[in-house]
Amino acid sequence: MTTPLSDEFRAAAQRSRAAARSLRTLTADEKNRALAVIAEQLDRDGEQIAAANAEDLARAQQQGTAAGLLDRLTLTQDRLDEIVEAIAVVRDLPDPIGEVIRGYRLPNGLSVEQIRVPMGVVGMIYEARPNVTVDAATLCLKSGNAALLRGSASAANTNAALVATMRRALMSESMSADSIQLVPGTGHETVDELIGARGLVDVVIPRGGAELINRVVTGASVPVIETGVGNCHIYVDAAANLDQAVAIVVNAKTQRPSVCNAAETLLVHRAVSDEFLAKVSVALADHDVTLHADEEATAAVAGSGVEAVPVTDADWAAEYYSFDLAVGVVDSVDQAINHIQRWSSGHTEAILSDSATTVQHFLAAVDSAAIAVNASTRFTDGGELGFGAEIGISTQKLHARGPMALPELTTTTFVITGNGHIRS
Amino acid sequence: MTTPLSDEFRAAAQRSRAAARSLRTLTADEKNRALAVIAEQLDRDGEQIAAANAEDLARAQQQGTAAGLLDRLTLTQDRLDEIVEAIAVVRDLPDPIGEVIRGYRLPNGLSVEQIRVPMGVVGMIYEARPNVTVDAATLCLKSGNAALLRGSASAANTNAALVATMRRALMSESMSADSIQLVPGTGHETVDELIGARGLVDVVIPRGGAELINRVVTGASVPVIETGVGNCHIYVDAAANLDQAVAIVVNAKTQRPSVCNAAETLLVHRAVSDEFLAKVSVALADHDVTLHADEEATAAVAGSGVEAVPVTDADWAAEYYSFDLAVGVVDSVDQAINHIQRWSSGHTEAILSDSATTVQHFLAAVDSAAIAVNASTRFTDGGELGFGAEIGISTQKLHARGPMALPELTTTTFVITGNGHIRS
Repeated sequence: MTTPLSDEFRAAAQRSRAAARSLRTLTADEKNRALAVIAEQLDRDGEQIAAANAEDLARAQQQGTAAGLLDRLTLTQDRLDEIVEAIAVVRDLPDPIGEVIRGYRLPNGLSVEQIRVPMGVVGMIYEARPNVTVDAATLCLKSGNAALLRGSASAANTNAALVATMRRALMSESMSADSIQLVPGTGHETVDELIGARGLVDVVIPRGGAELINRVVTGASVPVIETGVGNCHIYVDAAANLDQAVAIVVNAKTQRPSVCNAAETLLVHRAVSDEFLAKVSVALADHDVTLHADEEATAAVAGSGVEAVPVTDADWAAEYYSFDLAVGVVDSVDQAINHIQRWSSGHTEAILSDSATTVQHFLAAVDSAAIAVNASTRFTDGGELGFGAEIGISTQKLHARGPMALPELTTTTFVITGNGHIRS
Repeated sequence: MTTPLSDEFRAAAQRSRAAARSLRTLTADEKNRALAVIAEQLDRDGEQIAAANAEDLARAQQQGTAAGLLDRLTLTQDRLDEIVEAIAVVRDLPDPIGEVIRGYRLPNGLSVEQIRVPMGVVGMIYEARPNVTVDAATLCLKSGNAALLRGSASAANTNAALVATMRRALMSESMSADSIQLVPGTGHETVDELIGARGLVDVVIPRGGAELINRVVTGASVPVIETGVGNCHIYVDAAANLDQAVAIVVNAKTQRPSVCNAAETLLVHRAVSDEFLAKVSVALADHDVTLHADEEATAAVAGSGVEAVPVTDADWAAEYYSFDLAVGVVDSVDQAINHIQRWSSGHTEAILSDSATTVQHFLAAVDSAAIAVNASTRFTDGGELGFGAEIGISTQKLHARGPMALPELTTTTFVITGNGHIRS
């Protein structure tokens, strides 16, 4: 079950561990200075990075890569500028390390403090977009962790150039370059090595499609934070403000359908379903949304110009990431809750209702990372919630749930201070 | 790699999930009332429970079980009384559910609250001691979780009687009996089912020896909280108060050597090693402790009456859980830190020193769940730290680290409340 680690991988992971030890004791000023130098160096090395990216793009084009993937792979000067600007945001965030989460004095005089400390070595597994390389590395650095990165083979040259630049910056500050490393190689076995490196890697965060996440979660002996798969629901209650509801459904479905916090299923209370569905379907038709609708919903949207096909169980389960929306009519908030309990991936659900009692009931019963009340599902995002940055959105219950930023990249140590105290 | 679930196990886990849904919405008063009724029922069913325990003991004796294990298996009236008293302590703890961990208003007017909610279904895998059955079930109930318990085969009758009593109490309160269940069967395959029940079980907490923990951690697809293995170190600095240090070392090694927070290795700064080791070895000889000592330490303890044998790498790695102690002399605090980084299991280390600078340096560099400063390692314990209860001591970095009680059995939901807010 466990992949044996290659000598090369083991050596790299051990260098990461050594770097992590030196990162533990850095001050916030030292880490911020390193981040500033990294930003400057990325600016300075723009041409080399662009050349490396051009190589990746040329190879991808030769291989007939789809346009969407090519776009994600492309690192324009504007995108590099955004990456550099994002580093300034990370630099300005408060350092999580050293924060006292709990602190108290026991009756026997022992003083107890639970203090945030770095995780150690953070492994990241991600797909084409090269900005993740810099985002992950700088968030890890700010939180005192060594980053061991496994990007996609399609971005290998770009990632190598970005990491080489960041390492050069660290060395110019006399800091360990191994604070930021790519795993050796880009083959599939490197994923297995990273998730099997128990004792060398402290946590692995996969960012990507359901297939990657599933492979990591079932194969890992290193602790994992599962991220980002979202089958998000919107429930429009009998007591909803229907004009607001139209705007929210359109926003949640169409503003950026390819992301995990976009809405995939709409459930409407029967008391308002005819009126609401007639309205919202006109608006959705403008965005060329296809509805996958149950019988009642299909009848209600007739004549609106929206395309409607019969809904199946596969639709209720789907994370479309496209201009498709499953639609059903329900008898009650409880039926909506039951539907969500059966089909949701536990990312984000929205309830649109002016009834405080109904909202309260929905909040108590629904078990998801985030619940939006009279707001779009699209707000489940580290940037939108004011975290200043995001390393991913956890859809598991352990350690972190929902958008993750710096505190989620830390663990804690209890410091128990006495004066010769022994236990009786 | 993943064990297929038996129909019986799957059905049981689904009943746990259904029970978990009803537990989510209970008030603290309702849960406390159930705990009170459970305590009363355990009191009332004492004879049946004793009879079941007698069966387990008779079978264990027939099988030639060792005296220590027989003792752990034995449920005397006094021990049952202690179990019942412990429920009152859990009842008096604050309900973690509903606690607002973070709450703020965003510039756009959205209100954000991160609220503690139950995990859902908590799987526990543990060994002989029957008190864990009640401790785990009541801590899960108080935190709104369904408990799916897998005790050892040797305690099967006792555990069945305890669980039957607790379920009877829940039914008398019209609460779901499936809030507390044993997995069907006691064979080895039930461990594999529990750790492979991804999507049915939200977290598994193994409590037991290194072999069990390792099996769970490497085989699980359900998220795991690793607990309880401890190779704890004490470093006696050049600036230590040596009389205090003698008392602390004797306490940490001998007060209860069979537990994970007992000390296993003693490292002494060369500046005080002759004087300190001469003193401490006399005290340890009184407790029949065997030292596994390096050359210098061996020379220093000569004539004290303590038994000393040469130390090996196996000793530095050992969690003895016995009256054995590995002892080494070091040149500096940094040499002690390096030794700890190499050999520690990351549970608890102690530094005994009156130098604030040295303590600070040790705290910054050592990466363990707990660090005791001028105190015994034995304080790393939920009860001692004032948590009122303990479900285990986490030795992993994800989710919880160190002693775990009610808050560690919860996750969170972000509630994002707007007034028709959409994302632009």
